[in-house]
Amino acid sequence: MNFVNIIQKKAKKNRLNRQEIDYVIKNIVYGKIPDYLITSWLMALYINNCSLDEAYFLTLAMWKYSKKIDLTKLKTKYPIIDKHSTGGVGDKVTLILAPIIASLGISVAKLSGKGLGFTGGTIDKLESIGCQTELSQKQMIKLLKENNLFVASQTKDIAPADKILYNLRDLTGTVDNYGLIASSILAKKFAIIGTHVFLDVKYGSGAFCQTYQQAKQLVKYLKYIAKKMERKLTIIISSMQQPLGKAIGNLIEIKEAIDFLSGNVANYPDLKKLIYEFAIKILVETKNISFLQAKKKIDFVIRSKKALNKFYLWIKKQKGIDLTKSDLPFNPKHRLLIKANKSGYLKWKSTAQIGNICKDLGAGRIKKADKIDFQAGIYLMKKIGDYVKVNEIIAIFYSSTVISIDTKRRFIDNIVLANEKNIVSPIVAK
Amino acid sequence: MNFVNIIQKKAKKNRLNRQEIDYVIKNIVYGKIPDYLITSWLMALYINNCSLDEAYFLTLAMWKYSKKIDLTKLKTKYPIIDKHSTGGVGDKVTLILAPIIASLGISVAKLSGKGLGFTGGTIDKLESIGCQTELSQKQMIKLLKENNLFVASQTKDIAPADKILYNLRDLTGTVDNYGLIASSILAKKFAIIGTHVFLDVKYGSGAFCQTYQQAKQLVKYLKYIAKKMERKLTIIISSMQQPLGKAIGNLIEIKEAIDFLSGNVANYPDLKKLIYEFAIKILVETKNISFLQAKKKIDFVIRSKKALNKFYLWIKKQKGIDLTKSDLPFNPKHRLLIKANKSGYLKWKSTAQIGNICKDLGAGRIKKADKIDFQAGIYLMKKIGDYVKVNEIIAIFYSSTVISIDTKRRFIDNIVLANEKNIVSPIVAK
Repeated sequence: MNFVNIIQKKAKKNRLNRQEIDYVIKNIVYGKIPDYLITSWLMALYINNCSLDEAYFLTLAMWKYSKKIDLTKLKTKYPIIDKHSTGGVGDKVTLILAPIIASLGISVAKLSGKGLGFTGGTIDKLESIGCQTELSQKQMIKLLKENNLFVASQTKDIAPADKILYNLRDLTGTVDNYGLIASSILAKKFAIIGTHVFLDVKYGSGAFCQTYQQAKQLVKYLKYIAKKMERKLTIIISSMQQPLGKAIGNLIEIKEAIDFLSGNVANYPDLKKLIYEFAIKILVETKNISFLQAKKKIDFVIRSKKALNKFYLWIKKQKGIDLTKSDLPFNPKHRLLIKANKSGYLKWKSTAQIGNICKDLGAGRIKKADKIDFQAGIYLMKKIGDYVKVNEIIAIFYSSTVISIDTKRRFIDNIVLANEKNIVSPIVAK
Repeated sequence: MNFVNIIQKKAKKNRLNRQEIDYVIKNIVYGKIPDYLITSWLMALYINNCSLDEAYFLTLAMWKYSKKIDLTKLKTKYPIIDKHSTGGVGDKVTLILAPIIASLGISVAKLSGKGLGFTGGTIDKLESIGCQTELSQKQMIKLLKENNLFVASQTKDIAPADKILYNLRDLTGTVDNYGLIASSILAKKFAIIGTHVFLDVKYGSGAFCQTYQQAKQLVKYLKYIAKKMERKLTIIISSMQQPLGKAIGNLIEIKEAIDFLSGNVANYPDLKKLIYEFAIKILVETKNISFLQAKKKIDFVIRSKKALNKFYLWIKKQKGIDLTKSDLPFNPKHRLLIKANKSGYLKWKSTAQIGNICKDLGAGRIKKADKIDFQAGIYLMKKIGDYVKVNEIIAIFYSSTVISIDTKRRFIDNIVLANEKNIVSPIVAK
């Protein structure tokens, strides 16, 4: 077999077989293929469509040449789940969902990458409160036994082929391809053996999938691969028509998670809806209970602060700040109020633009090596469809550095204040 | 402008404009774009079709960021032509055609690359008889004035973008694309300003274009670009259904060229047909004479040895061996006869395979750095359609090194001796 022949085969619109894709991935992992050949091959896959089977072969090969963390040996009575989101703006779901279901007798074992986007990822948010996220397999198992919950950084040996491919796709603008996205997600997720994987596929501005139809297409790939690999996978599709909840950033999202788990769920209707739908799905599928039973259990662990205490213990077990004794270290040096220049029903032109502004405030990374300002973020006082009176505060910016006028101008340009109320589509698609 | 956006634009099947292609080529020439981005872009152009305009913009940009040799300042009464072939097996046309037309009051100014293929290119063949081919612009003009003929090596500063692109296309299997081939040829040809370019586009086994239809498609691109760049370009399409003439190699082709120019044209009917059609076309188009007048002039310069003497003078002027005083240094150490194992009408399964065997004998290069064995080659005693009796010699192999049994076996496997005569299509397509 020869890599140039494989490139040519795909360039001529033929499908690659399992052996060919295995050969490619193996040689990429062993550093035997120069980048200029990999990018050429990726472009051929990108343009000439990565089929369902090709996506499966890719996942299989990336998974094969990856370290695996086998939890099947952990003799636990609890079902073990992993939860993953395809990424959006203000997505603090893991921070809330994980302690809720962990307090209901489900173990959560999650590996997560550092965020390259609007804000940090879950790992960055945990690090903003001092958590240790680089865990050995021994530590992971210890945490599952003691607190049935851990979120750890992906190490370099988890799907190393994906790291190389994703980086080159990012550099060459070939990210948005169903087969390439699906295999990239699942090769990493399936590296933990023994979990039932729950996926939140987001669509809309600021997400990979721009439309619901695109999300459905991605889901088709994800389900096909999971079935072929004989792994349990449950997917919900949710909307990114606006940032999720009110806080966007790192520490500020931790703050919102704590507020939610403290019982103030009514303040966050979209977040509540998504968290509940997700948690109910997990309970129904892993515990074999009814929808209503599941809902009651969730209500209970929030009302009783069981989930909140689980959250605190989680952070403590991962060597983070003891938030039962210390305050959250959220004290940004600079803040800026954004007020309405007229009255009307609020709408955002683009969710992605809010994310970009948040990144520019310091909350996200452009390059892997960039340092995140954990203090930076945006708090939305108003949500889509809210009636805003002139001079009312719409949002508050936070940053450790001086906030530029340009950032403010771009945020204001992204606001629509209309005479008529917008139709807000449901957060979770049916 | 940003290269990744340009890659994405083409990946999404959009056409690139003049500014975008200029930006790409400029940055490639200045070494500002890493190879992994160039190969990704090339693959997008390859799969999503390089349009006529994109091919024109590519040619224009590669020409713009190239050294130019301006012959318009050379105040000569002679029309100046350049002749180029897309490459085939046994293609010694330049060696014969150039002295014929140069002896008829037409200047020939040709830059040529070192051959990467079945045999060396014209440059290698000239070097096999000691010619100096690295010429300064001053030397080129001196040769045109004294002998109205030169063939020089392309220097690195002639279309440097093409060198980078061609190398990467070769490595990634993206050579066979009309727009990329046409722009690669013409950017280099048009670097000499003041010439009327005559192109021999070959089709068939062993040529870029496998079929006549593909050759027509390439010609469409070539003509479009030439028209846009306001340059005189005349094209003939010729067949590569078998090697041209009888000799394939380097010194052995020089030998055949001398034999042809010595008047033994009847020995080489296909070569004669192509040389005459080509020379007549050049004379008719540049001298404004009739077909018959042109033919008579060619007959005359061959019969009178004027063309042969022009050839000898050309070699001498480029510091090669004085063939009026010395013998041609063709004395291969090893030779091998290939005989017919039965009787029948001769046909080759593949012209390319004959070329490959010739390369394996040492006559061609695989990599740029490879050294050519000028003694190596194949002499065909029989041509397509000839009736061959059992034990008659079909071909003779020559090499400075021992000739392997495998080479012989592959040659024999490529022979068909049929009961019925094959239809031989005309060498020059109408």
